[in-house]
Amino acid sequence: MTQRIAPRSQDFPKWYQDVVAAGDLAENAPVRGCMVIKPHGYALWENVRDPLDRMFKETGHVNAYFPLLIPKSFLDREAHHVEGFAPEVAVVTHGGGKRLEEPLILRPTSETIIGHCYSKWVQSHRDLPILINQWSNVVRWEMRPRLFLRTTECLWQEGHTVHATAEEAEEETVKMLDIYERMAVDYLAIPVRKGRKSHLETFPGATHTYCIEALMQDGKALQMGTSHNLGQNFAKAFDIQFQDVDGERKLAWTTSWGVSTRLAGAIVMAHGDDKGIVLPPRVAPVQVVLVPIFRTPEERSAVLAEATRIVASLLEAGIKGELDDREQIKPGAKFFEWERKGVPLRLELGPRDLQARQVVVVRRDDGTKTPAAIEGLAQELHERLDAIQAGLLERAAGYLESHTHRATTLAEFEALLDEPGGFVEAAYDGCDETELAIKARTKATIRILLDAEDAAAQTCILTGKPAAARALFARAY
Amino acid sequence: MTQRIAPRSQDFPKWYQDVVAAGDLAENAPVRGCMVIKPHGYALWENVRDPLDRMFKETGHVNAYFPLLIPKSFLDREAHHVEGFAPEVAVVTHGGGKRLEEPLILRPTSETIIGHCYSKWVQSHRDLPILINQWSNVVRWEMRPRLFLRTTECLWQEGHTVHATAEEAEEETVKMLDIYERMAVDYLAIPVRKGRKSHLETFPGATHTYCIEALMQDGKALQMGTSHNLGQNFAKAFDIQFQDVDGERKLAWTTSWGVSTRLAGAIVMAHGDDKGIVLPPRVAPVQVVLVPIFRTPEERSAVLAEATRIVASLLEAGIKGELDDREQIKPGAKFFEWERKGVPLRLELGPRDLQARQVVVVRRDDGTKTPAAIEGLAQELHERLDAIQAGLLERAAGYLESHTHRATTLAEFEALLDEPGGFVEAAYDGCDETELAIKARTKATIRILLDAEDAAAQTCILTGKPAAARALFARAY
Repeated sequence: MTQRIAPRSQDFPKWYQDVVAAGDLAENAPVRGCMVIKPHGYALWENVRDPLDRMFKETGHVNAYFPLLIPKSFLDREAHHVEGFAPEVAVVTHGGGKRLEEPLILRPTSETIIGHCYSKWVQSHRDLPILINQWSNVVRWEMRPRLFLRTTECLWQEGHTVHATAEEAEEETVKMLDIYERMAVDYLAIPVRKGRKSHLETFPGATHTYCIEALMQDGKALQMGTSHNLGQNFAKAFDIQFQDVDGERKLAWTTSWGVSTRLAGAIVMAHGDDKGIVLPPRVAPVQVVLVPIFRTPEERSAVLAEATRIVASLLEAGIKGELDDREQIKPGAKFFEWERKGVPLRLELGPRDLQARQVVVVRRDDGTKTPAAIEGLAQELHERLDAIQAGLLERAAGYLESHTHRATTLAEFEALLDEPGGFVEAAYDGCDETELAIKARTKATIRILLDAEDAAAQTCILTGKPAAARALFARAY
Repeated sequence: MTQRIAPRSQDFPKWYQDVVAAGDLAENAPVRGCMVIKPHGYALWENVRDPLDRMFKETGHVNAYFPLLIPKSFLDREAHHVEGFAPEVAVVTHGGGKRLEEPLILRPTSETIIGHCYSKWVQSHRDLPILINQWSNVVRWEMRPRLFLRTTECLWQEGHTVHATAEEAEEETVKMLDIYERMAVDYLAIPVRKGRKSHLETFPGATHTYCIEALMQDGKALQMGTSHNLGQNFAKAFDIQFQDVDGERKLAWTTSWGVSTRLAGAIVMAHGDDKGIVLPPRVAPVQVVLVPIFRTPEERSAVLAEATRIVASLLEAGIKGELDDREQIKPGAKFFEWERKGVPLRLELGPRDLQARQVVVVRRDDGTKTPAAIEGLAQELHERLDAIQAGLLERAAGYLESHTHRATTLAEFEALLDEPGGFVEAAYDGCDETELAIKARTKATIRILLDAEDAAAQTCILTGKPAAARALFARAY
């Protein structure tokens, strides 16, 4: 139970594995690459999912559900899509005791099956836009799985929209990216860089892909969400046409966008410390835990009575409070467990506190211990939770800033990637080959393209040719 | 678009198919047996899911997520379980471009994979009870699929709990059945009969199964939810043991319980009429729709302005209101569409209503049209929605009562099944063979066992032997 956590600074991958286990978020399933999301991890996912779902609905989207099982032939209809996903799919060959006539794949993403449906649903311009989201599981065979970050099965949402014009599709693509940014910054306390992917990193079948990218505490980048403008590629492949106001039949424009349980991994790696995970209050399943302390039966009943009143008043005030009144577990062991689980605030209430009409408040993020009066406690804790939320974001923003540099030569580029790590802005000649060569040599990939204003004045860090673009590079998950 | 709906009384199966399509709830997917749950159908499912989720959490349960993919060998560990489910499973044989060493099945239900996890999680009596629920998709190869009622993939929840004693497991099994009953009666306005399944109808691997059974408008029964006491069967198969207070290692006791998207089918078949579906207000995605009526531009702006105010005031008052301000669709077409979708109340607002400061309120359940003052409208509509909710339940309860009879001879039994249909209480000798013979002859199955108090005084309707049990029979979905 009291498994050690490897220090972050020494072995980050091991630290990650340890804190996910110690925080009781998830564990490996018997099938390689799959995971079990444990109650604490699932409650965290619910707290990411629910505000996203609200934001989707506020922007006019509705939920629906499309099948897990997709005819294999659907994948073949869009050339880039099949190239990108065919190597990763899981194939069902038997059902109901019989070999299937056509094998089925488990959705790795649903553009194909949804495109098939949309071709029937869309007839007239009056049917547009279609703004649908789906919460579901997807399966992609992962060769190097890691809990939350890359798993053969993951939970996610995928939005799929259809529009009458290119402009509307582009507007939607950007709008949803902004919602992802809001989720990352306002809820997860993770600042992001936002932008367009290079040609090589574009979603298979999209005309272009936008994403949000964050830095983890080991200086590696993590893609946290993507929004794809699919142009007319899937509309062509699945024949999504509509009769426009002018009476003409036209091909529609589609988009897709998604985030997944990977976000739980982002929270762990952006905020965790050597004691375990550290949860931003806005997504913490338990925001405040109260641990009662007593020795005698008299103390016990007095402390528990007050503790129960306090937790009820917190719940009343909209704070996710929990009373840890488990018997047979000592307060110290409880402190340790809740620290590992990342609960933002711990309250300690003992007989002397009771007399002083106060609780001791311990912050998970900085470990500070200060008393607070029981009178007006909820208001006080609301403020402290807000302070923690803001503090986590500020700290992460500071990290992002101090880990973003600009390189003009390859030597500088490589040195910055090694130390301090993080994002490196650099110019390159814009060729896929160069991007691949940089990756092969440095393990860094283009996370997003940057404004190209002054690119022409610079030279490519690899080839020395005049630069065609500037990009934000990083070693990434 | 204006596809006809077959009359309920003439062809119930066709009527069901027609109203599900006309109400825009769901459609068949390209893979046989799978369905697409359309936005209106999914919103209905969300309204069933959310109160259930709340009730689970109020009774101490937490959510988690276990993998879709299960090693085929897991199924084999519980003899009855494999016998029951092996014929229905879908099998993944290839992943990531390679043939798998061990085939994987798509979960038809998760007792096996969860049992595997619980065997690691449960060590001590302090770890008990484990009270976990999962919202997920499951796959069972269906030979005779019907939208919502039997689909190869369906959405559901499955609770899986572990207890230290047989008594606690039984208490849990019954408690969850009560929650299902509450969902059916209080939310779906569907009265149910509640009880224990016969040996033949018990879940494969359970010691006994409880269920709730409802009557549809064609006189056929529909099982709406099941709760299984698994005894120590899965604890044995997956080695779920704990060290008890007395220091001894003991086998645990487990339960499982579930309801699925089938409930949407129950709502349709319990309440729908020849015009389409009829939604109970408590689960209706839209409870009140306002259709504005006007001719001139002046009327248009006056009516729309008031309509917008009204709908905002309804939303404010916690009523799910929607303004149907779509251009180019005539009011009559809108009425027709919302009727098919089952929206409980329609408001019509025209220039004359505006002058009289009233709206015309049309009830979906009985078609009555009565005006209501705009002043205090929300309160009035709350009352009408409550009246509709109560009225639907009352009507369904009347149907259930008038379609429940008792037979003492086989002739009587068969006559009652034919006319009026519904539930028939009868005594039988308690043998599996007799139950099967009755099914073969009459197509009726035992829905639940009844109290046996006076069974001994009766004779089996089939064999004429002294009766060992009384049961509620019906032809069923």
